[in-house]
Amino acid sequence: MNFTVHSFPAKMGFGAEERSNYANVIFADLKNLSVDGPGVSRETYGAGETAAMKYCAELAEKEGLSSWYDEAANLVVELPGQDKSAPFIICGSHLDSVPQGGNFDGAAGVVAGLIVLVRMKREGRVPPISIRVMALRGEESAWFGQCYLGSRALFGQLTKTDIERPHRTSGKTLKSYMQGVSANIEKIVSGEPLMNASSIAAYLELHIEQGPVMVARDMPVAVVTGLRGNIRHQNIICEGEAGHAGAVPRWLRHDAVLATADLLHRYDDHWAALQERGLDLVLTTGILSTNSNDHAMSRIPGQCNFSIEIRSQSIDTLEAFYQLLRSEAESVEKERGVKFKFDERSLAAPALLDQGWIDHLLKCCKENNLNSEAIASGAGHDAAVFANVGVPSAMIFIRNENGSHNPKESMEIEDFMYGVDVLYQALLDPPQ
Amino acid sequence: MNFTVHSFPAKMGFGAEERSNYANVIFADLKNLSVDGPGVSRETYGAGETAAMKYCAELAEKEGLSSWYDEAANLVVELPGQDKSAPFIICGSHLDSVPQGGNFDGAAGVVAGLIVLVRMKREGRVPPISIRVMALRGEESAWFGQCYLGSRALFGQLTKTDIERPHRTSGKTLKSYMQGVSANIEKIVSGEPLMNASSIAAYLELHIEQGPVMVARDMPVAVVTGLRGNIRHQNIICEGEAGHAGAVPRWLRHDAVLATADLLHRYDDHWAALQERGLDLVLTTGILSTNSNDHAMSRIPGQCNFSIEIRSQSIDTLEAFYQLLRSEAESVEKERGVKFKFDERSLAAPALLDQGWIDHLLKCCKENNLNSEAIASGAGHDAAVFANVGVPSAMIFIRNENGSHNPKESMEIEDFMYGVDVLYQALLDPPQ
Repeated sequence: MNFTVHSFPAKMGFGAEERSNYANVIFADLKNLSVDGPGVSRETYGAGETAAMKYCAELAEKEGLSSWYDEAANLVVELPGQDKSAPFIICGSHLDSVPQGGNFDGAAGVVAGLIVLVRMKREGRVPPISIRVMALRGEESAWFGQCYLGSRALFGQLTKTDIERPHRTSGKTLKSYMQGVSANIEKIVSGEPLMNASSIAAYLELHIEQGPVMVARDMPVAVVTGLRGNIRHQNIICEGEAGHAGAVPRWLRHDAVLATADLLHRYDDHWAALQERGLDLVLTTGILSTNSNDHAMSRIPGQCNFSIEIRSQSIDTLEAFYQLLRSEAESVEKERGVKFKFDERSLAAPALLDQGWIDHLLKCCKENNLNSEAIASGAGHDAAVFANVGVPSAMIFIRNENGSHNPKESMEIEDFMYGVDVLYQALLDPPQ
Repeated sequence: MNFTVHSFPAKMGFGAEERSNYANVIFADLKNLSVDGPGVSRETYGAGETAAMKYCAELAEKEGLSSWYDEAANLVVELPGQDKSAPFIICGSHLDSVPQGGNFDGAAGVVAGLIVLVRMKREGRVPPISIRVMALRGEESAWFGQCYLGSRALFGQLTKTDIERPHRTSGKTLKSYMQGVSANIEKIVSGEPLMNASSIAAYLELHIEQGPVMVARDMPVAVVTGLRGNIRHQNIICEGEAGHAGAVPRWLRHDAVLATADLLHRYDDHWAALQERGLDLVLTTGILSTNSNDHAMSRIPGQCNFSIEIRSQSIDTLEAFYQLLRSEAESVEKERGVKFKFDERSLAAPALLDQGWIDHLLKCCKENNLNSEAIASGAGHDAAVFANVGVPSAMIFIRNENGSHNPKESMEIEDFMYGVDVLYQALLDPPQ
């Protein structure tokens, strides 16, 4: 795909209005690179994500910032600090999207980091320690069934099994996509980290809020306290027995759809009950289907496939609810003579963010006259991976209407620029 | 597709063993014409069904029987009777199958009729009134979402809306498929019958049993008392609201999958309760799916599509249960903030078969020393269409293991030949 990176000459200045225009142009360009139906599709380790990265790299180059791809094919853009030997700060997020998703989920954090570096560069300001903006690969699980691929690769957390996972539509393995962008597969699956966590002073991520809390509280910018973890199964198969829809009586049926409906309804009931007891928990079956090769209106369905995802800020709640889900599946199996085959379970642990940085970011918000609070993140982010390997991590949320993972996500550029200002100030004067 | 119709010279005789061999060869040939994965696929008004019809027409021709296609492109093979001006008997069934279905569902009835005519022809026996074997088009609803297409076309029951229905995979209309085999579309949708019901003395159909009753009762041949009717929706759309699976709290969700699971579970509960009260009823959702264009494990599903089919021998039970289904859908809509969009409802009325013919067939069974009973048909058949326009209709069931609409259906050729013998005797000496 061809594209032109717009350039704003330094002599024009880089005041608030220029920065805002600059951001608008970048978002429009990124969208044009990946339009798909009503939204954008930037495939994990695929064409859309790679095009967006090339765009950002070219933009950095035009601004005189050095950039490179690391061994997991993540993009790195650096502004050296006064102390080049000290641990550096990573300001990161992702550029991939869900299929026909929104333009800001992920990209906002990368664009924010780039604008901060460009501003410092143009203003001739050198931060105390180096800052690396990172566009991390594969944060969305929609393409290969697992999330945080680029950041987990950094810390030796991707296994041989992980990279053999098939792409949702092409069926080709993650490995083949990673090879296509020259990732160092051998080193990644060796379990050896690609970077040393102790060389990172902090990980900062700006992201749109994906829930409705900030709109409800009239809050353009928020600071995140922690992130929900999740347990997932991408494909659970309910195996029943196919048969003629008119001729088999109820007691001889092993209907995979009614068994699955029974199971999901039980899950939903338990969720409602736990929620009333005050537990933090959400449950989603995003994918559900009978077998399109042989299903028919007049055939008792012999198979039904579905995904399950549960999220919580508490690992204990996650594990307890998960055990309940498995135990209910066994009950339905016995009652209905079906079999639920669970594929590999994936776990992303919940993460607490760094209190020092949370306080620092809240102070920066206050100095920018912003009505801000510390709130929890319902969604997972790469920040969880960094936090869980011991890197002091923090997140800035930007108000966003209509949620995310859909084309209607709607972030106001004014809100975004407030967040960028907070990020600029926080990085120029990081906590000790 | 190329095929060879085997020919058994008359001089070989046509005793029980030859007839049985002949049937085996025909079934094997029909299977070879339409093998698809583990089963056979003979598309309604499509390639597989047409190939099977051509095969049967060629077989009839080799045996010196006249054949033609009627205006709905059904195949007719005739053996003239002693009184050529009297109403004739139709001995019919269908040649289409569900996708990857079994070889005997439908084809058994056509093959049985052919063998009876060939035997009479070879033996030089002329039945009192003419017999027409008919291979009726499109009995299975799997391809265009409606059943009994060929027989309903005969009696002016196919509408313009019906023939605009899309094929399950190609998306092309039924009309275009019907045109492909030279059906008289204009006349069919005019509502004018293609044949006069009063010209038909009786409709007889031999079919495999699609349920487990005859295996359980050790009964190779049974006579059918009546057929379940059905009400169907091919595609009900549950419209919810897509969103991020981690970030939207429970009370702000409009999850299309959990709403559908709730609804189907309620349907299942009501079904169980009505069944315990002794009502004849079955319920099936054979097709169920989130939208594969944009569904993802970490996205609250905004849409879920499903089919519904209910069957009963009582039209009152059908209508009462249907109203309950619609009313529960409204409850779920209110409780969960989703919308269920029902497509066109189709109704096939239950049918009672002719008592005179039932008694006659039971007598023929007895004279053949068969342990037979009169049982109800859980499945629908073309016989229902004939019965409901006033043609005295009857059915012979052949024992069959593993149900039908699946590749594991299993009819013993010995059982089939018992049924053919009953049919032969019943047609040679029909009730007045």
